[in-house]
Amino acid sequence: MTRKHLLEQIHRKKSYLCIGLDSDITKIPKHLLKGTDPVFNFNKQIIDATKDYCVSYKINTAFYEAMGARGWETMEKTIEHIPSTHFTIADAKRGDIGNTSSQYARAFFEKLNFDAVTVSPYMGEDSVRPFLEYEGKWAILLGLTSNPGAKDFEMQKTGDEYLFEKVLKTASGWGTPENLMFVIGATHPHQFKKIRQLTPDHFYLVPGIGRQGGSLKEVAQGAGNKEGGLLVNLSRAIIYASDKEDFALQAAAIASQYQTEMSSYL
Amino acid sequence: MTRKHLLEQIHRKKSYLCIGLDSDITKIPKHLLKGTDPVFNFNKQIIDATKDYCVSYKINTAFYEAMGARGWETMEKTIEHIPSTHFTIADAKRGDIGNTSSQYARAFFEKLNFDAVTVSPYMGEDSVRPFLEYEGKWAILLGLTSNPGAKDFEMQKTGDEYLFEKVLKTASGWGTPENLMFVIGATHPHQFKKIRQLTPDHFYLVPGIGRQGGSLKEVAQGAGNKEGGLLVNLSRAIIYASDKEDFALQAAAIASQYQTEMSSYL
Repeated sequence: MTRKHLLEQIHRKKSYLCIGLDSDITKIPKHLLKGTDPVFNFNKQIIDATKDYCVSYKINTAFYEAMGARGWETMEKTIEHIPSTHFTIADAKRGDIGNTSSQYARAFFEKLNFDAVTVSPYMGEDSVRPFLEYEGKWAILLGLTSNPGAKDFEMQKTGDEYLFEKVLKTASGWGTPENLMFVIGATHPHQFKKIRQLTPDHFYLVPGIGRQGGSLKEVAQGAGNKEGGLLVNLSRAIIYASDKEDFALQAAAIASQYQTEMSSYL
Repeated sequence: MTRKHLLEQIHRKKSYLCIGLDSDITKIPKHLLKGTDPVFNFNKQIIDATKDYCVSYKINTAFYEAMGARGWETMEKTIEHIPSTHFTIADAKRGDIGNTSSQYARAFFEKLNFDAVTVSPYMGEDSVRPFLEYEGKWAILLGLTSNPGAKDFEMQKTGDEYLFEKVLKTASGWGTPENLMFVIGATHPHQFKKIRQLTPDHFYLVPGIGRQGGSLKEVAQGAGNKEGGLLVNLSRAIIYASDKEDFALQAAAIASQYQTEMSSYL
């Protein structure tokens, strides 16, 4: 999906909500477990109920890999079920030497037809570049993540800047705002202004709202730009809103609340 | 596999060779393409021919993911075929927030029964810790990688040390030489002495010999410790030694040469 197409979706729906399908077979409603592919059935109902409130779905590959080859099939079926109007993200945190990253790009862009893959910057340019070589596809590079471990390396000083700032500055030269986004956690509101100065035109994928404690208002006001420039992810707070038969309706209700709040900031 | 068991295998075989199964369906011998699972057939013949010369096999997950769910099945069949005497590594470069890394650990340690997974340190402690919580299983953390991109961040100064040195020092406090190894590329011989001083007892998984240009002699003499402390990986130089019907024999011949050289250093 192109940047233009994504921006159109955001402005038409007045939403930059991304719903994270961190679908864990041990946490989905028990009544689904009777079927042949409970996680796909869960995802399908969540997508059908929430698609009008969000512009993106993010599949956390770990939860599918934990089910082996059948989990990979569930991921394939889920991505096929997501409407083409929605920006699809493989939250896979991949990255390896060039010839290996090329294989990951094939896996997620060609075999599964995702629009974007999250990528770790640690190994540098040649580990990221293969994800930037597909027309209409995106690398979403880890910048400043939402978890406690962000302090261990991302927030260590390299010269007079933090490592994550060096990552943003350096990687901005590898791609453009048309094929490169950054992961910026909602749990670091005091860093938003500086981050936006470094990368004024890039989209951010923002985790950390909901169960991790970040504030949507602070993200919208501090990390957005004039076009929006945000995809704000919620996973557990939406998909596990209920563990009863009404789970999809309850998920839609929470997604609708977030969409309403987002529309007030756009 | 425990450290003690791994050391026994190394000293019995006089080898610390790890063979990387970066098995690419576009590069394996053409005569195999007629069968139902050409990559598994390729891996099986490589393993059967080379197992006496190596102590470890490393599966590069990217090459299997590029084939979708069927690739994941090929990975499952391959890991089942590797003898229990061999240390098995999922070269997956994973790492995410704690609850997600736990799912990756389940995927590789429980579902697939690998002995070790390679992990990226960028997101810090909570992204690594779930891989350290399994008895007899290992996290192999990226330290200084073999690729050109290592200069972009890993070799940037944080204070008076390089980022990769900070990673080695910090992560040494998260695990022990019984459950934590580091990836140290063979392409950085001038760094070996300092690295070994920082982490005297840890095993290193060493890529970068063969097609990437590193020297086994420099690795053995510079990065080893008194027990060996090394798993030296070769992938393409061994598995693609021939693209003819004799590919497994030729792979064994190259593996045998490396084992002979290794035995002279042990």
